[in-house]
Amino acid sequence: MLDVEKIRADFPILSREVNGKPLVYLDNGASAQKPQVVIDAITHAYSHEYANVHRGLHTLSNIATEKYEAVRGIIARFLGVSDEEQIVLNSGTTEGINMVAYGWAMPRLKAGDEILLSVMEHHANIVPWHFLRERQGVVLNWVDTDASGVLDAQRVIDAITPKTKLIAITHLSNVLGTKVDVKTICDAARERGVPVLVDGSQGAVHMPVNVDEIGCDFYAITGHKLYGPSGSGAIFARKERMAEMRPFMGGGDMIREVCKDRVSYNDPPMKFEAGTPGIVQTIGLGVALEYMMEIGMEAIAAHEDDLSSYAQTRLSGLNWLNVQGNAPDKAAIFSFTMQGAAHAHDISTILDKKGVAVRAGHHCAGPLMEHLGVTATCRASFGMYNTKAEIDALIDALELAHELFG
Amino acid sequence: MLDVEKIRADFPILSREVNGKPLVYLDNGASAQKPQVVIDAITHAYSHEYANVHRGLHTLSNIATEKYEAVRGIIARFLGVSDEEQIVLNSGTTEGINMVAYGWAMPRLKAGDEILLSVMEHHANIVPWHFLRERQGVVLNWVDTDASGVLDAQRVIDAITPKTKLIAITHLSNVLGTKVDVKTICDAARERGVPVLVDGSQGAVHMPVNVDEIGCDFYAITGHKLYGPSGSGAIFARKERMAEMRPFMGGGDMIREVCKDRVSYNDPPMKFEAGTPGIVQTIGLGVALEYMMEIGMEAIAAHEDDLSSYAQTRLSGLNWLNVQGNAPDKAAIFSFTMQGAAHAHDISTILDKKGVAVRAGHHCAGPLMEHLGVTATCRASFGMYNTKAEIDALIDALELAHELFG
Repeated sequence: MLDVEKIRADFPILSREVNGKPLVYLDNGASAQKPQVVIDAITHAYSHEYANVHRGLHTLSNIATEKYEAVRGIIARFLGVSDEEQIVLNSGTTEGINMVAYGWAMPRLKAGDEILLSVMEHHANIVPWHFLRERQGVVLNWVDTDASGVLDAQRVIDAITPKTKLIAITHLSNVLGTKVDVKTICDAARERGVPVLVDGSQGAVHMPVNVDEIGCDFYAITGHKLYGPSGSGAIFARKERMAEMRPFMGGGDMIREVCKDRVSYNDPPMKFEAGTPGIVQTIGLGVALEYMMEIGMEAIAAHEDDLSSYAQTRLSGLNWLNVQGNAPDKAAIFSFTMQGAAHAHDISTILDKKGVAVRAGHHCAGPLMEHLGVTATCRASFGMYNTKAEIDALIDALELAHELFG
Repeated sequence: MLDVEKIRADFPILSREVNGKPLVYLDNGASAQKPQVVIDAITHAYSHEYANVHRGLHTLSNIATEKYEAVRGIIARFLGVSDEEQIVLNSGTTEGINMVAYGWAMPRLKAGDEILLSVMEHHANIVPWHFLRERQGVVLNWVDTDASGVLDAQRVIDAITPKTKLIAITHLSNVLGTKVDVKTICDAARERGVPVLVDGSQGAVHMPVNVDEIGCDFYAITGHKLYGPSGSGAIFARKERMAEMRPFMGGGDMIREVCKDRVSYNDPPMKFEAGTPGIVQTIGLGVALEYMMEIGMEAIAAHEDDLSSYAQTRLSGLNWLNVQGNAPDKAAIFSFTMQGAAHAHDISTILDKKGVAVRAGHHCAGPLMEHLGVTATCRASFGMYNTKAEIDALIDALELAHELFG
């Protein structure tokens, strides 16, 4: 098991107070806090080793390039990708999925072609596909969860039709905490020749991921949820898919030659990395992933499973609270509404008075909100540094909210 | 005049050595170093005030949102934009220009329509337009500089045809230091109903900019060249152009409502800002711009003019050096080649041994290299913290290179 107190000591923000109470940060689904090693790496880079990458030949540029490029290998190791040339560095999942939409899907899909999505997708894995619907008549097909929030892999497989050109699916719901058996879906999809994009924004944070084993075609991650800097991220793209993709953004670094009347492009993955990248935040992401791997993804997952079980037990004791989704083995993400008049926003405001940070709203999951029949929920989402004592603090604050609004 | 020693003391990296010599950092055209206030702002944000923006209601999220959103106003003030709703926050110029290419130009321009460019453009302001040429038959027309590297505004105006749908032009050449009279171009273009995109990547760094006065339709800046964090930036987009644009990237924040069968978008500028943004680097960019404005853009420009004159005088004394471009009033950016056998890369390697950091290569300006008849140059590019003593160090190092290679 991980030593949670030792980990907490690594995150400077966790020792602060909010409204006179110790901060209980349960908004990790939106963004995670950063350990001191990540902050130090950023400070060090800007204070001692900063320059632009790739195109320099001077010492600082060489150091920055070496540190920046090393992150590609760290991400590959973190995701279980054998060939780091299949990792495209970017600013996060939104850019990653848009790259696939613009670079792979738009030039290939025709009117009537279908993209298969789950109802649990985040807007980052919905809106780019709506662009294809709006702009070129692609059809979006949806697979619902069952009443407990489980997404049956077989239901996804059964929904594949001869017109399905892409499956775009989350590894772990940011609202319900439901894990999706993406490997089974990928196995079946591959047999049918349908590529699969997995949104790993949440999945990669909470459990060990092995992309080679999953067998997906794309796997997107976002650094700021992985205890790394804002504006960092990456996407795994299978070599065959990369070969099919046209460039997304144009600019420096992604070209081989630019003339007045013609342009040729660099080899992948550089072909998909235009302009000066987020140099320092990418270096910081590398440090964050090393930090996670040192603790161990198995240990992180075990700790969070423990938190999840405890939170489920405690929350189920509040019979005026509706928790959305109780899939077996769900991750430590809990969305809920309160019976009676209280709006999710009011609940989160009361919790904040007690130092408990949760999110309230649609969690960028419009179709799921519609499916659940709600407009908003409160969401408490846990990370590796959270404790059972913090779950107790959440329960106490919820009881106060219930007294005030119930 | 600015107090250059006081400014130097604000930049921690400037006190380091490279190869046993004091660092002489003359690679500002590629990326600028960061003052301590910017580094401190990043550290403070991650250590004490970090959360995701916009969609939270808890204290940390509100603080982060307030600090992040305040940067829109700082950028508007820095650029002389009266209405901050015309500022789109992004990761830099590359993303900004691609947003215009994908969001404004691609849905509007047809085969045979023309885009007018100068031969001095950076690849970030060329490759996105090559996409339109490759994908939809748009024609790229080019205006050359004269022998001294001057780009005559009238030549640009004369090149406008009834088929010209966009002029995309730099404010200041990253290779030659040539300043472009974009206001005169914009005045004439507006009369002819042709929108103008100005690449301000270099211009905004070296001189006061007033976008309202220039009258352009788009003005792109990149934070890392403005003494701000990597992965930060913005683009001004005129309200009328924003209204014509479709969204570029899809994801959270840029939507109003997402359902299974439909989507509606947020109002500009949010419509063009998808997903979790580069929160902390944007906050850092705000601090960098405040720092520049406190020193004063007039004072910075005057100091750099002084450096430019001195460098011109000293470099012209080296009769074995070919300096590219000697436009009157040129900015402190000097590209050169050495007569004899020395390749630009070899020169930069020798300079590096003396602690002098310059860039060698095509500087992401393929068409200009072709126009100049070279494959690569060395480039010494100055910033507000550079000194005449550093120019002397550059000259000494060049003389050494000449001895070795000349």
